Amino acid sequence: MSESQATAIQPDSPPSNAIDTDALIIGAGPIGLFQAFQLGLQGIKAHLVDALPHVGGQCAQLYGHKPIYDIPGIPVCTGKELVQLLDQQIAPMNLPRHLNQQVQSLSRLADGRWQAVTTAGTQFHTRSVFVAAGVGAFVPKALKVAGVDQLAADQLLYHPSETSSALGRSVLIYGGDEEAVQAAIDCASLAAKTRLMHRRDTFNAAPDQLARLQALRDSGAIEVVIGQITEVQQNAGQLQALQWMDGEGREQTLRVDWLLVYLGISPRLGPIADWGMAIEKKQLVIDPATMATSAQGIYAVGDIVSYPGKKKLILCGFHEATMAAFAAAEYLQGEKPLLQYTTTSAKLHAILGVHHPQH
Amino acid sequence: MSESQATAIQPDSPPSNAIDTDALIIGAGPIGLFQAFQLGLQGIKAHLVDALPHVGGQCAQLYGHKPIYDIPGIPVCTGKELVQLLDQQIAPMNLPRHLNQQVQSLSRLADGRWQAVTTAGTQFHTRSVFVAAGVGAFVPKALKVAGVDQLAADQLLYHPSETSSALGRSVLIYGGDEEAVQAAIDCASLAAKTRLMHRRDTFNAAPDQLARLQALRDSGAIEVVIGQITEVQQNAGQLQALQWMDGEGREQTLRVDWLLVYLGISPRLGPIADWGMAIEKKQLVIDPATMATSAQGIYAVGDIVSYPGKKKLILCGFHEATMAAFAAAEYLQGEKPLLQYTTTSAKLHAILGVHHPQH
Repeated sequence: MSESQATAIQPDSPPSNAIDTDALIIGAGPIGLFQAFQLGLQGIKAHLVDALPHVGGQCAQLYGHKPIYDIPGIPVCTGKELVQLLDQQIAPMNLPRHLNQQVQSLSRLADGRWQAVTTAGTQFHTRSVFVAAGVGAFVPKALKVAGVDQLAADQLLYHPSETSSALGRSVLIYGGDEEAVQAAIDCASLAAKTRLMHRRDTFNAAPDQLARLQALRDSGAIEVVIGQITEVQQNAGQLQALQWMDGEGREQTLRVDWLLVYLGISPRLGPIADWGMAIEKKQLVIDPATMATSAQGIYAVGDIVSYPGKKKLILCGFHEATMAAFAAAEYLQGEKPLLQYTTTSAKLHAILGVHHPQH
Repeated sequence: MSESQATAIQPDSPPSNAIDTDALIIGAGPIGLFQAFQLGLQGIKAHLVDALPHVGGQCAQLYGHKPIYDIPGIPVCTGKELVQLLDQQIAPMNLPRHLNQQVQSLSRLADGRWQAVTTAGTQFHTRSVFVAAGVGAFVPKALKVAGVDQLAADQLLYHPSETSSALGRSVLIYGGDEEAVQAAIDCASLAAKTRLMHRRDTFNAAPDQLARLQALRDSGAIEVVIGQITEVQQNAGQLQALQWMDGEGREQTLRVDWLLVYLGISPRLGPIADWGMAIEKKQLVIDPATMATSAQGIYAVGDIVSYPGKKKLILCGFHEATMAAFAAAEYLQGEKPLLQYTTTSAKLHAILGVHHPQH
């Protein structure tokens, strides 16, 4: 083998298990979803990553059932409805989603592309990145009591969306919000014993959920325990019991073999702060004409960015995602894209999969 | 009367017939309508002026029945549907509308306010102005033939939205678009004689309108005339007859006593160019952080403005109107407004007239 042949093997070339893409969107909130739409209109295929198990981000998580009145042209919708509408709108873009994982590292390859690796081990090699991470990745608040770190991963779950593993077990649901109440209702018909523990006897849930909870309490299918967990006891990683403190400050013990914790979801900027982009007051500094960060090929949109006059409103994020898509199209395709209208452009109609016969 | 009392009468104080307002919005397209919404959320009452007889501007006029796919959260809507949704959204703002008139002059009063006078003689004294005039005021294309200038105003109408005055008259509708066809259909049951003149025997209208037109032609209720008007003949301002040229170039005469002209609507920047604001390539130069023009208290939004990266898209105009409302609130109220969310703010709920009981 000659030397010139040997050097043709590039040590920086992507390993075969990485996903090659033109664009990676970090954050599946409304702005991340609309970013995919605008990139799609520019003919740019994207992949989407989010820390939560579903799309919608903060909007679905915090305002899921609450009304929003200032989305232009939508007099009122809930957060979940807005996310559903956006999901429907971006359907023609066939966007691959990588959920339940955070982008943990982002580094530049020798060929100018970016390598992103998620907490689930998914790897991307991408020519452009769109940070639409809002106020950060929404991660569940952890239960911070003695013994938690020794538990096996399937013994304590945070905000699980599915509870069928409760079958035949002695389950304790810890929390007082809508999701905690729903989990208790779901477990009641499956578990050997269902307890719902909260620091006080009030629960924040929909009226029909509260009525169902009361009926299950009355029938003995759910036991509500007023108190706080102080310690978890395990044996070889298997949960055995909880120490807890009641309203009068007395320590007590409960035998439990599955623990579901609902202490809420809170945002963390996380690793984004370590990627070397200019940051001011925890926000990415961008050029509002292009939404470009200080790192070439990385754009940022929505609540994570700062520019003169910036308003943290969803409708402003939609505009920012549009600006970013046009700028990225010029960066990726080497020429300024023409402004085309979805009403009249045959090219955009083909992308959207809609048929418009000419008059 | 002492001299000091006499000087208390200010020559620049508003005459009693002017409308006093905090904000005047010029242009009732989607962006002008959403401007009213965002000003309303800031507690700023506005008045709206538009050259057309209805709200919606270009969007209702040119894309009325055509689909738009890129309004965020609205997978598809026609221009008319978007305008209806916005009109419904801004209903809580009780926005007074002054239609069928253009702002003709805008001049600064001694107290720093602006005096606006429309073509219909409506006067405003306003602390701020929002130019949301798109590519200009949409005005009907004029019929340019001999004799037109001598006609009384009620003898020749451009794009009337209402045709009940056809009763018993000999009417000629001139044009080939949807509105012309509809006007002919409407007149057929009222007029003594209904003629529809177009340069060729093809009409651009919805299938049901074309079917109705054909039925009325077959029954003799509408006569379609293929040709072009070359001259109008009048007597003391009263229309008597038309000279017209048929497809073979022969001049002919028709007795007609009412003429409805539908030659289309085209945009004109008009007097805005004369108001002393900085203009580049027929667009107003603004600061994208505030949407402020070079004239204090005058903001501009939508397709009429230019800034780095500007995209002429409706969704970008919504963002611009929001930026302008925040900047104007600071200008008018003397302090930077707090960002509040329509989902959670009791103040915004009161403005929107929605009731949210606390949990």
